[in-house]
Amino acid sequence: MDRITIIKVGGKVVEETESLNSLLDQFYKISGNKILVHGGGRSATEFASRLGIETQIIEGRRITDAATLEVATMVYGGLVNKKIVAGLQSRGINSVGVTGADLDLIRAEKRPVGKIDYGFVGDVKNVNTRELRLLISENIIPVVAPLTHDGKGSLLNTNADTIASELAIELTNYFNVYLFYCFEKKGVLSIPDDDNSVIHDLDFALFTEYQESGIINAGMIPKLENGFRAKRNGVKEVLITNHDNIAGGKGTRILL
Amino acid sequence: MDRITIIKVGGKVVEETESLNSLLDQFYKISGNKILVHGGGRSATEFASRLGIETQIIEGRRITDAATLEVATMVYGGLVNKKIVAGLQSRGINSVGVTGADLDLIRAEKRPVGKIDYGFVGDVKNVNTRELRLLISENIIPVVAPLTHDGKGSLLNTNADTIASELAIELTNYFNVYLFYCFEKKGVLSIPDDDNSVIHDLDFALFTEYQESGIINAGMIPKLENGFRAKRNGVKEVLITNHDNIAGGKGTRILL
Repeated sequence: MDRITIIKVGGKVVEETESLNSLLDQFYKISGNKILVHGGGRSATEFASRLGIETQIIEGRRITDAATLEVATMVYGGLVNKKIVAGLQSRGINSVGVTGADLDLIRAEKRPVGKIDYGFVGDVKNVNTRELRLLISENIIPVVAPLTHDGKGSLLNTNADTIASELAIELTNYFNVYLFYCFEKKGVLSIPDDDNSVIHDLDFALFTEYQESGIINAGMIPKLENGFRAKRNGVKEVLITNHDNIAGGKGTRILL
Repeated sequence: MDRITIIKVGGKVVEETESLNSLLDQFYKISGNKILVHGGGRSATEFASRLGIETQIIEGRRITDAATLEVATMVYGGLVNKKIVAGLQSRGINSVGVTGADLDLIRAEKRPVGKIDYGFVGDVKNVNTRELRLLISENIIPVVAPLTHDGKGSLLNTNADTIASELAIELTNYFNVYLFYCFEKKGVLSIPDDDNSVIHDLDFALFTEYQESGIINAGMIPKLENGFRAKRNGVKEVLITNHDNIAGGKGTRILL
């Protein structure tokens, strides 16, 4: 099977012109098939605030009412996604920006209301890569925004880390998949303030241990849970790495 | 050659849920290959205003400074485009929303500054439908937002009527192309306030005459100029028609 590299980059990196350009220069150099999955939360929060819409985040998840969904659709599906696509085109990389609604790529179910009502947040139900793979085979690079749809006409807000892992898992049927989560740090740190304390190999026992001791917490937990899920489901390699060195192979490698 | 129908719909129709649903129901019924090109100007103006960005329109063209381009990218490429795509998916029509940057579909040049500086407005230079046709051949319906790119990393705002005619002209190399401009009226009117005064056949001599006498004016002039350009360049049929009857074949037919 051919190799495919899925790069997930967080909001901050893609939201500032300089870091976005640096990222795209590095992305350009990755050989073979590749996909870019992006966030955009900071811009969404900023635009929501400018529009007078209050942002509520509980346990790292954005509460998405109708107005917030509109902002997410505009910022993730429009502003951030199209800036990346235009940036790739300028580097000679033919790309296409998609949400989960485009090409019927990712169907989701509105999260049931439990203790918390997350609003228009989608839990992934089905990933269809038929048309995406057709484009990939023509050397078109997909750029994926963190939105899904319910098949009934509604878009849904879905965590970008989850989008990346679900896409990665589905693509293991057709490719050797390498999934890189890129962020500000060099990897998962064993000492929060020490950038050189990168945990190079992280298996599930160690993850549980670090979680219990509070060394790994907050937004890193769902990211790593997505990573373990991908690894358990056939993804060749899952790496948490620095966005300044996305294809360097350094960082925290997830082991089973 | 196969037939393809290009439907261009203006802002108002796609910006309100009820009229959008009615439009998509009709679009669903069009048989064969089809493309939907949409506007979104009213929503762009509204969001710009809510963000404290002043909208300046000269001779029907939006002056697009950097902040306005961001709004256009969000509203056209995100909000309006993805709502349409999700709506089509719910009707069992697999679709993909694109701007001119996606798939390198439409390259444009920033309009030179003359008497007026339009800002980030693009004049179309090149239309590439190679990847779009691949998707069309797989029964994926393209939904096209009125944005282009300059190949140097910038998106550009481009009139949706122009996008529709340029796309139509390029596609005459591969299809028998039918181009329908849909709007609120039943067609071009010879008496502005009389909805039943539709001009059924409009050739260029008559267009010039009506223009000189002021019967045809304002935003209708560039729309018709786009229509004549398409007709002169091999598009089989150009029709200005009502959005409540998009495939009914009634309205103003453009003749050479």
